Amino acid sequence: MDITKLLKPHKIAIVGASEKTGFGGDTCRNVMRYMTEGSCYFVNPRRGEVFGRKAYPSISDLPEPIDTVVICTPQSTVEDLLREAAAKGAGGAVVFASGYKEVGTEEGRAAQERLAALCRELDMALMGPNCAGFVNYVDMVYPFAFLSADRDRRGSVGMVSQSGQLCLSLMDSPSMRFSYVISSGNCAVVEMEDYLDFLVDDPDTRVVALYLEGVKNPAKFVSALRKAALKRKPIVVLKAGRSEKGAKQAASHTGSLAGADRVFDALFAKFGVVRVNDLEELLYTAQMFSVLPRLPERPAFASMNLSGGETGICADMGEAAGIEYPDFAPETLAKLREQLPGYASPANPLDMTASLSYDTELYAGAVRTVMSDPGVGMVLVGYTLLEEIADPAIEYMAPALERVSREPGAKPMAMLPFVGNTRNQKYLDMLEGCGVVMLPPPVYAFRILRYLADFIRYDSADHNLDVAVPERPRGGARCSLGEHEGKLLARRFGLSVPAEEVARSEEEAAAAARRIGFPVVMKIDSPDILHKSDCGCVKVNVRDAAAAGEVYRQIVFNAQKHHPDARINGILVQQTAQPGTEMIIGVASDPSFGPTVLVGLGGVFVEVFKDTALCLAPVSRAEAMSMAASLKGAKLLRGYRGAPALDMDGFVDAVLAVSDLAVHYKDTILEMDFNPVFLYEKGTCAVDAVVVSSAPLE
Amino acid sequence: MDITKLLKPHKIAIVGASEKTGFGGDTCRNVMRYMTEGSCYFVNPRRGEVFGRKAYPSISDLPEPIDTVVICTPQSTVEDLLREAAAKGAGGAVVFASGYKEVGTEEGRAAQERLAALCRELDMALMGPNCAGFVNYVDMVYPFAFLSADRDRRGSVGMVSQSGQLCLSLMDSPSMRFSYVISSGNCAVVEMEDYLDFLVDDPDTRVVALYLEGVKNPAKFVSALRKAALKRKPIVVLKAGRSEKGAKQAASHTGSLAGADRVFDALFAKFGVVRVNDLEELLYTAQMFSVLPRLPERPAFASMNLSGGETGICADMGEAAGIEYPDFAPETLAKLREQLPGYASPANPLDMTASLSYDTELYAGAVRTVMSDPGVGMVLVGYTLLEEIADPAIEYMAPALERVSREPGAKPMAMLPFVGNTRNQKYLDMLEGCGVVMLPPPVYAFRILRYLADFIRYDSADHNLDVAVPERPRGGARCSLGEHEGKLLARRFGLSVPAEEVARSEEEAAAAARRIGFPVVMKIDSPDILHKSDCGCVKVNVRDAAAAGEVYRQIVFNAQKHHPDARINGILVQQTAQPGTEMIIGVASDPSFGPTVLVGLGGVFVEVFKDTALCLAPVSRAEAMSMAASLKGAKLLRGYRGAPALDMDGFVDAVLAVSDLAVHYKDTILEMDFNPVFLYEKGTCAVDAVVVSSAPLE
Repeated sequence: MDITKLLKPHKIAIVGASEKTGFGGDTCRNVMRYMTEGSCYFVNPRRGEVFGRKAYPSISDLPEPIDTVVICTPQSTVEDLLREAAAKGAGGAVVFASGYKEVGTEEGRAAQERLAALCRELDMALMGPNCAGFVNYVDMVYPFAFLSADRDRRGSVGMVSQSGQLCLSLMDSPSMRFSYVISSGNCAVVEMEDYLDFLVDDPDTRVVALYLEGVKNPAKFVSALRKAALKRKPIVVLKAGRSEKGAKQAASHTGSLAGADRVFDALFAKFGVVRVNDLEELLYTAQMFSVLPRLPERPAFASMNLSGGETGICADMGEAAGIEYPDFAPETLAKLREQLPGYASPANPLDMTASLSYDTELYAGAVRTVMSDPGVGMVLVGYTLLEEIADPAIEYMAPALERVSREPGAKPMAMLPFVGNTRNQKYLDMLEGCGVVMLPPPVYAFRILRYLADFIRYDSADHNLDVAVPERPRGGARCSLGEHEGKLLARRFGLSVPAEEVARSEEEAAAAARRIGFPVVMKIDSPDILHKSDCGCVKVNVRDAAAAGEVYRQIVFNAQKHHPDARINGILVQQTAQPGTEMIIGVASDPSFGPTVLVGLGGVFVEVFKDTALCLAPVSRAEAMSMAASLKGAKLLRGYRGAPALDMDGFVDAVLAVSDLAVHYKDTILEMDFNPVFLYEKGTCAVDAVVVSSAPLE
Repeated sequence: MDITKLLKPHKIAIVGASEKTGFGGDTCRNVMRYMTEGSCYFVNPRRGEVFGRKAYPSISDLPEPIDTVVICTPQSTVEDLLREAAAKGAGGAVVFASGYKEVGTEEGRAAQERLAALCRELDMALMGPNCAGFVNYVDMVYPFAFLSADRDRRGSVGMVSQSGQLCLSLMDSPSMRFSYVISSGNCAVVEMEDYLDFLVDDPDTRVVALYLEGVKNPAKFVSALRKAALKRKPIVVLKAGRSEKGAKQAASHTGSLAGADRVFDALFAKFGVVRVNDLEELLYTAQMFSVLPRLPERPAFASMNLSGGETGICADMGEAAGIEYPDFAPETLAKLREQLPGYASPANPLDMTASLSYDTELYAGAVRTVMSDPGVGMVLVGYTLLEEIADPAIEYMAPALERVSREPGAKPMAMLPFVGNTRNQKYLDMLEGCGVVMLPPPVYAFRILRYLADFIRYDSADHNLDVAVPERPRGGARCSLGEHEGKLLARRFGLSVPAEEVARSEEEAAAAARRIGFPVVMKIDSPDILHKSDCGCVKVNVRDAAAAGEVYRQIVFNAQKHHPDARINGILVQQTAQPGTEMIIGVASDPSFGPTVLVGLGGVFVEVFKDTALCLAPVSRAEAMSMAASLKGAKLLRGYRGAPALDMDGFVDAVLAVSDLAVHYKDTILEMDFNPVFLYEKGTCAVDAVVVSSAPLE
C-alpha cells in the first residue's frame, strides 16, 4: 500500500477543529504552532473561525482538493466523513476515534471491519483508528493529537509506535530528534509493517525506532527487516511481552497476537535488529545511530575520564556489559606518558586526571593520541554535562572535541555522563552538531554501547534471510510419525541415523537383529507412545537372537498394557550407536514466522540449565556454528579436559539437515525432536526422533 | 577516634582564604553562601579582607579558639599550620593538599607518614590529605573545595566518598539530599571506616551512601556494618573493582588494597549492605531509603499505569529484575472492575487507562483499592513527570497521592517515570514531601526496587555476623597437609570421612585393606602431590590382599618417578565410599576478611558453569542452606527426575564443620578443598581433602 500521500500530504484538513481541550483542540494547537495556514484547512460546521483561522462548514466546502483528512470527531461521524474526503481527492486519513477492535466487543470488531472495507472501497490509506496521529518533521506536517513542550525536534529518527502514550513520552525526551513520529493505533488499514517499510525506504530517516506489541503481517514485516539489513539501516525495537504478564498485557491491549517472545529474539538476531528494554534505551539507542557520523570500524572502545573513580566505573560496567576495551599500543602509551601528568598511569579505560580538562590544546592532544590507537574504534569521553554549568571544564573540553571531530581520520565519539539530568542545551547542540553522541548514565550507556557493538559485528551475509514464513494457516490436527518413519524422513534430508528395521514378529526381530549385528536396541515403534522408556518399551543391549525374540514379546506386552489404544507399527530393532556427547536438535513452528531450530547439549544441560540456542529456519552454516558456540556448555565440545575436540562441522551438517526438513514442510510440521543426537570426534548419529505435524506429510 | 569535633565544629578557620579560583577561593565561595560570619574565620597573611569579610594574618591571631582548621594552602605549609591550629584549640583539620601517598613515590609516602605521626602527637582528627573536604548539612558547615549549583540539599543521606570528583557528581544530581557529604581523601589519620561508623550512629542520617575503593581497617569496617545491620540502617555501597581493569584502577588510585571482589559481595550479603553499580544507582537507592516513610512490610509490588505500553514495560522489566507482582485478590479485582472503565482488564501490573488520571477522586479511589490488597507491600505509580508540564494529568494525580499517603494504613509509594529528564520541582517536592519516592527510568528503577526487596528480605538473625577477621598478618610460607591428616583434622570438627589408614609397607596395606573391607581405594598420601590421579597415584576397586600389595608397589613407583622430591607419608588405604551426588566444599582465606567458604556441585557444574556460592565464615545454618539453594543446579538436590531428595541438613552439617575448622585456624589456613563430598539421601562423605596453611597447624 502506498502511504506517501498519507504521510507526505501537501494539503490536509482537520475535521472537528476546535479551541477546546481534546483531540480537535489539541490537534489545532499543534498545527497552528508548526504548520502554515495554506497547508492546513480547518473544518467545523458550528464555527466560522478557530484560533483566528477560517473554519469551513464541511469538507465539500474546502476551496481546493486535499491529500489527507484528519478526523477528530467521534466514531459515529467517521464513515460519512471518509466518503466526503475521498470525493475531495483525499488518499489518506487519520482517525483518532476509539470504540473499535480495542474495546474487545463484537460490536467494536464489526465497526473496525466495516471501516476497513470502506477504505478499501475508497482506496484510502487510513491511519488508526484509536491512534494519536503522526508528525512528519521533514515537511513539517503535524496532525498529532497530544501536546508536548515546544521545541525543535527535527532529526533523522523515524518512529512508529503501537501506543500513542509512548509516542508522547518519546517526544518528551529533550534529546530526541525525529524524521517521523507515527502512532499507528489499531492498524485497520495501513499496517505497522507498511509504516516500517516506508521508513526503511525513506532517505530522510537514518534509523527506525519501533514500539511493537505484535505483528499481524509476518511476511511484510520480514521483508522490511530484510531490506533494512541489506542496506544496513538500523532498526531499534522495544517489544512488549518478554514476561508472561507483559505478553498477556500486549495481547489484551491491541488485540494483536503477541507470539512467542523468544521467536522475536531469533527473528531480530537474524536481521541485526537491535532489541531494547525500555523507552529510555529506545530513544538513546536510536539517537546514537542518528547522531553518529558513521559507524565505528570496530566494536572496540577507548574510555577517557577525569577521575579515578569514574574510570573504575567505566571499567567495571563496560566489562559487565561485554564491552571491549583494547589495551593501548605501546606507542599510544608512550605518547600518553608524555601528555599526561607524571602521577597518571595510562591504561584503557584511562584516568586522564582533571588537570588536562582546563586546557583545550592539551585535552585535544590526548584525545588525538587515544583516537589514533589502531585498536580503538570509538572514544568515550566521561564527563557529567549538567544543565547548569558549575565546573568550567566543559568550556575547554567541548571545543577540543569539536576540533578533533573535524580532523581527517577522526573516529566516532560519545560523551558519557555519570549522573542523570537534563544537559546544557548549548553544549549538547555543539557536541551533537559535530557528531559526538550524548549518552545517558552508565547503566543505560553501556547497554546501548553493547547494542552498537553487536550492530557493528552483524553481517547479513552470515545469515540466511529467507525466513520460511508459512503460506497457509495450519490445520488443527496433530499427526505423529513413528520413530522409524521420522528417522527415514530426516535421513532423506541428510541426518545420520543408526541402521534399524521395524519387526512385526519375534522371528522378524531376531532376523533383523542378526542382520544389524548384536548387541541391538529394541523399542516400540508407535506414533502414539512418546515416552517409551517410562513404560518398559525400550530395551538396550539385546545380545542374541533368543533374547531378541523374548524382548519383542515383552515390549509388545508392556505397550498394550500401558497404552491399550496405541497404534503399533512394530518393534524397532536398532544398531547400538557408539556412545557420544549427547546433543539435542529440535524444531518448533511459530504460527507467524515458521519453523525455529533449537540446539543444546542433552541431559542436565537442557533440563537444569536451559542451555539452548534458537534460530529461525532456514539456518545458515554460520548461524548453526554460532548457535553451538553460544551454548554455555560449548567448552565441552572443544576438547574438554584433554578429550579430543568434537566434529563441529558434522554437527552443523546435522543442524542444517533438520533445518532443510523443517523448511520443506513449513506449512505442516509443528514440532520435531532429535534427542539425543550423539556427537563424535567424527560424525553424528541421531538415535531417537519425534516428528509431529498438522497434516500427513507428503 | 572521636571525629565529632571535626564534623560538627562550632568554629572553623579557612587558611588560605582567597577570591581566586582554586581550593581557597572556592571554599570561601561555598562558606560565604552557606555559613554565617561568626562560625567561620578567614586566614590570609597577605590580605586584610576576602569577599568583604575580615581576614586574619595567622591562626594565632584569631580572636577565639577554633574547633576545626581547613587548610587550603600547599603541602609545604601544612605541618606548621597544624601545630598552630592545635595550639588554638583545634581538634579537627581538613587538608586539601596533594603530593602524599597518592603520587606513588617514596617521598609522598614518607610525607604522609610524617603527617599522620604529627596528628597523633597533636591528637588531631585530620580529614585527607588529597581530599575535597566535607559538608555537614545538619549544622550547615561547608568546608568543601568544589563549587556546585546553589540549591537546598538538606536531607538524611550520609555520604562518604573515596573520590572527590564523585562526591561532586552526586551533589550535582537534582534529587539528592544529604545529612553529610564527606570526601575522605587519603585517610592518613581519620579512616573511611571512622566516617562510616559516625554516620551509622548519627541520628540525622537515615541511610549511608559509600563510594569505596578499598578497606584498610577490616575489623573497624565489619564492626560498623554489624552495627548498621542490627539497627537496620541501610548502607548503600558503590565499590569499584568488579572487573579486573576496575580493580587495578582502584588499587592505583588511592593505593588501598582492592581485595578480591567476590569477597566484598559475600561481606555485603552477610550484613545486608546494598551494593550498586554506578553513581546513579547509588544516589537513587540512597534517596529512596531516605524518602520512604517506612519500609514496605513485604517485598511485593503493585504497578499502576496510564497506558498498556507502559504497563507492558513494567511487567517485562519487573520480571527480569526479579520483582514480585502478586496477583490481586478477588475482592481487589472486583472493586477495580467497578472503578475502572469497562474496557480495562484489571491485573497486576495494572493498566488503569488514562481516563482516571484527570479526576483526583477517582484516581485516589483506585490507588486505595490497590493499596488495600493484602498481598501488596508497595505501590508503583507509572507516570513521566517532566520539568515542563504539557499534560495536566499530574495536577489531578499528585493531590490524590498526597491524600492517600496521609490516610491510616497507607503503604509506601513510588513514582516511576518512563523517560529520563529533570523533574518538575514543585511536584517533586510535593510528592517526596509526602513520602512518594521519585525513581529514575525503568532500567535503573527496577534494579533499585530489587535492592529494596532484598533489603526487606534481609534478616540479620539469619546470618552469623562475627566475621573471623584475621588478627595477625599471615606468614609467607605454604604448608600442605597430607590427605589423611587433612581428613583427620576435618573429622575433629565434624566432617564425615571414609574409614582409612596410612600403610607404610605392602603388608600394612594388605592388613589395612582387610580391616576396612574390600574393595578399597588406594592413593598416595603426600603433602607435595596435589594432582594424584594425573600421575598414577590413585587406584580404585582394589579387590583383595594380593592386589593391595601390588598396588602399593605401583603407587610408590609412580610417585617416585613423577615426583622424586615429594615427601611421602605412605599409601592411604581407604574404604570405597558409596557413590553419591558430587559436591565440593572449599575455603579460601581473604587477607582482610578471613576465611570464605565456597560450595558447589562437583564436576562440570563447577568447571563449566562456575556454579558456586560463597559465604564469609563463620557460616550460619541459614546461610549454608541458602548457599545450597542459590546454586543453579540446586534442583538436582531436591529429588531430580523422581530420584529421592538429598540430605540437605547433612550437607549443611558438613559445611558448618568446614566453616568451624576455618574459623578455628583463621590466622593460618590459606585454602582447603573437600572435593568431592558425596551427598546421599542420608549423610555425606568427604572422600578427598587438601589443606594448605601459612604455618603448621597447632
